[in-house]
Amino acid sequence: MKQIYEGKAKIVYEGNPGEVLLYYKDDTTAGNGAKRESLPGKGILNNQISTILFDYLASHGVRTHLIEQVDERTCRCTRTQVIPLEVIVRNVAAGSIVRRLGFERGASFSTPIVEFSYKNDALGDPLLNDDHIQALHAASTSELAHIRSEALCINSLLIERFARIGLTLVDFKLEFGRTHDKQILLVDEISGDNCRLWDAHLTSFDKDLFREDSGDLIASYTTLYELLKGSM
Amino acid sequence: MKQIYEGKAKIVYEGNPGEVLLYYKDDTTAGNGAKRESLPGKGILNNQISTILFDYLASHGVRTHLIEQVDERTCRCTRTQVIPLEVIVRNVAAGSIVRRLGFERGASFSTPIVEFSYKNDALGDPLLNDDHIQALHAASTSELAHIRSEALCINSLLIERFARIGLTLVDFKLEFGRTHDKQILLVDEISGDNCRLWDAHLTSFDKDLFREDSGDLIASYTTLYELLKGSM
Repeated sequence: MKQIYEGKAKIVYEGNPGEVLLYYKDDTTAGNGAKRESLPGKGILNNQISTILFDYLASHGVRTHLIEQVDERTCRCTRTQVIPLEVIVRNVAAGSIVRRLGFERGASFSTPIVEFSYKNDALGDPLLNDDHIQALHAASTSELAHIRSEALCINSLLIERFARIGLTLVDFKLEFGRTHDKQILLVDEISGDNCRLWDAHLTSFDKDLFREDSGDLIASYTTLYELLKGSM
Repeated sequence: MKQIYEGKAKIVYEGNPGEVLLYYKDDTTAGNGAKRESLPGKGILNNQISTILFDYLASHGVRTHLIEQVDERTCRCTRTQVIPLEVIVRNVAAGSIVRRLGFERGASFSTPIVEFSYKNDALGDPLLNDDHIQALHAASTSELAHIRSEALCINSLLIERFARIGLTLVDFKLEFGRTHDKQILLVDEISGDNCRLWDAHLTSFDKDLFREDSGDLIASYTTLYELLKGSM
């Protein structure tokens, strides 16, 4: 298979015309790659988890790149040009917003906060406002409005989906892509690697376990997968 | 006089009821106070420069806090509750946006970029988006819309005013305050301390001379004042 791109946690291969194959690695990174480890089985878990969540979103009208899961580490996806934005939705203060803006960790926002950062490792994925996005030609005004409303809709759907298994969706990161005919699709993955999920005891079921060396990531992702599968 | 607040470059004293007196110091700082020096006469120059520019803006309908200049270092102003936002307008890439987002220094933006940062020295004045501003209760949605449009209007007026003396307005920082009856006024100062101004040879007439140790700040501010005064 011809490799198109290798990211920190996935490899993108050429697929059928207009498609790509997404391969989930076990590599786990934090701090923009500063901390790095291979955690056996993580790729398999994230592929299963993300497939359940993308299928759930699609069944509620969200347009995603996922066509189908091919094997335990691979899925077939519509090929898109990735929009160079990380779209972060925050319901509860945690992570960078606590350090950056002084919110108390665990404080709920009365309305969700949507952030865009520039998908650019060399610059450290800096925060952007709408004017920066226009100046960088990252997305058009109408694409940006669509992405923002889609992110808030996905947030509502995911809050409900995770509540069903007793977890609070603290925050998460999305990425979007543009098809050859200018449709905007949800791309990348949704898993413990890019969501913060807390249970009623504020225990994490996400990559903070790895970032903070605070627990067994694989055990937690396994629980997360089993809870999601058991509540379909 | 009773001191209300001492900032890096000015002191605010109590004035008549509903008013304050703004006293311009010679203290000059850069890098959030990391570099600090007293430059004799700077306060006098900035008071004169800012008065000319505030009077110019007021004559074009901009509502400002300035009532009148009292002496060479002091002006009488309407008392306001300062909105904790630094409002930055950028016409040309320079300074932090070059380092942060990778724009080439000197590149013109096709439309001006407006940025809001949180006026909080302890946090290093971090960049905010509209959702952060709501979550921090820094300004209401309608106040924010008003501030944004006022900042763009002030930008157009200042571009024209500086063009008259052969200078390009690269970027600048504004602050706004809220009166007891919820009017939004332009506050603080407009001078070489918070504008970047380049002549046709890309020579700076602003605080970059101090930040970068690249020239005589007082000589340049004197020229700036004389050019503004001579073109009234």
